[in-house]
Amino acid sequence: MSESVKRAVVLVSGGLDSATTLAIASSQGFECCALSFDYGQRHRFELQAAERVCAAGNVSRHVVFDLNLRAFGGSALTDDIDVPKDRDEAEMQRSIPITYVPARNTIFLSIAMGWAETLQSTDLFIGVNAIDYSGYPDCRPEFIDSFTRLANLATKVGVEGDGSWKIHTPLLSLTKAEIIRRGVELGVDYSLTVSCYDPDQHGRSCGRCDSCQLRLQGFAAAGLTDPLDYV
Amino acid sequence: MSESVKRAVVLVSGGLDSATTLAIASSQGFECCALSFDYGQRHRFELQAAERVCAAGNVSRHVVFDLNLRAFGGSALTDDIDVPKDRDEAEMQRSIPITYVPARNTIFLSIAMGWAETLQSTDLFIGVNAIDYSGYPDCRPEFIDSFTRLANLATKVGVEGDGSWKIHTPLLSLTKAEIIRRGVELGVDYSLTVSCYDPDQHGRSCGRCDSCQLRLQGFAAAGLTDPLDYV
Repeated sequence: MSESVKRAVVLVSGGLDSATTLAIASSQGFECCALSFDYGQRHRFELQAAERVCAAGNVSRHVVFDLNLRAFGGSALTDDIDVPKDRDEAEMQRSIPITYVPARNTIFLSIAMGWAETLQSTDLFIGVNAIDYSGYPDCRPEFIDSFTRLANLATKVGVEGDGSWKIHTPLLSLTKAEIIRRGVELGVDYSLTVSCYDPDQHGRSCGRCDSCQLRLQGFAAAGLTDPLDYV
Repeated sequence: MSESVKRAVVLVSGGLDSATTLAIASSQGFECCALSFDYGQRHRFELQAAERVCAAGNVSRHVVFDLNLRAFGGSALTDDIDVPKDRDEAEMQRSIPITYVPARNTIFLSIAMGWAETLQSTDLFIGVNAIDYSGYPDCRPEFIDSFTRLANLATKVGVEGDGSWKIHTPLLSLTKAEIIRRGVELGVDYSLTVSCYDPDQHGRSCGRCDSCQLRLQGFAAAGLTDPLDYV
């Protein structure tokens, strides 16, 4: 790889946050290698969104990695458990919800790290957010800091190389409205994305799960209209 | 799960170290849930060994998880790169060899952690060893300590639960000879295991890769004969 090319692995779920993160990574001059996971999620429609987002974005490669977390279950997203609906903000903040997928972001970042190392890259981008979020432990800054320390101990490049790992989290401290405004500035087409945990058979968003509610509130706070179809 | 049952997820590759680790976990009273990975490794024969080891051992469940690390390559174990042979001890200690698989143990432990959380367990066993080993960064005690800290931040059980994660590494400071003696005491049948990175088409070990050499030296130092067939 030439010295002038900065390459990064960007996690792209197909949602609003990851589409914005991809646009930010690209705007910072990174050659973006996009990574999505087919992890047995109930909302597999998001993988079609990930394809659309990558096709519209500035992506040099897009890998969809198979990962059957449904073998373990334990989450409303990977098991036969109902997705909670119509929870208010207080409920969302009270405890970690049943849509939490055990170890998901640790698994995703680990695999991204493995791929990045083969690409001679030590830059990962992930669209975690600790403001308008569902309270997942693996979206918090202390998790990201801890993963960065682990990466520098776990890998050949971390131990022998001159560089060190950087986990970029450009959305970490933004509100959902700020994320959307930043994406609009960068030309992100949010009609390509999908955020719903429990879309109907046509892929239309429910408008009532935590993820839909946070998205709709974000568009409203930004003074914009969400281009998606809701049931 | 009743209070009296301690459950653990044990990583079982089918090699000498993981077979011994499984026997130790079982001897400590853990109900063992065994986890193996079909990760595109050149030495897929080890998965048959993992099946044999689990069938002979005291295992309540055995999951073989698909993980196509060959999609990324970058290692002699997951790419079309020759496995080094006949390296002496000085060569093994000089640098991290090409058999290093980027991020492998981080990925394996992350997935084990996800499964364990769904089993209401916070105990993982991994047969890493930092004495007679190939110098992989993700086998060292500082890696394990860092992963433990990450686990307590990354998971619902780590954040909300009363327990905390324990990554058991009973072999970490043992020589290969000590590992073998401990296994023999516990009744491990090493004829069921396989360690070779580059077996022939009949599954016979090469005797010349780092892994075979460490194994053969270990049996010799323990004053025992390796029951395996070598080419």
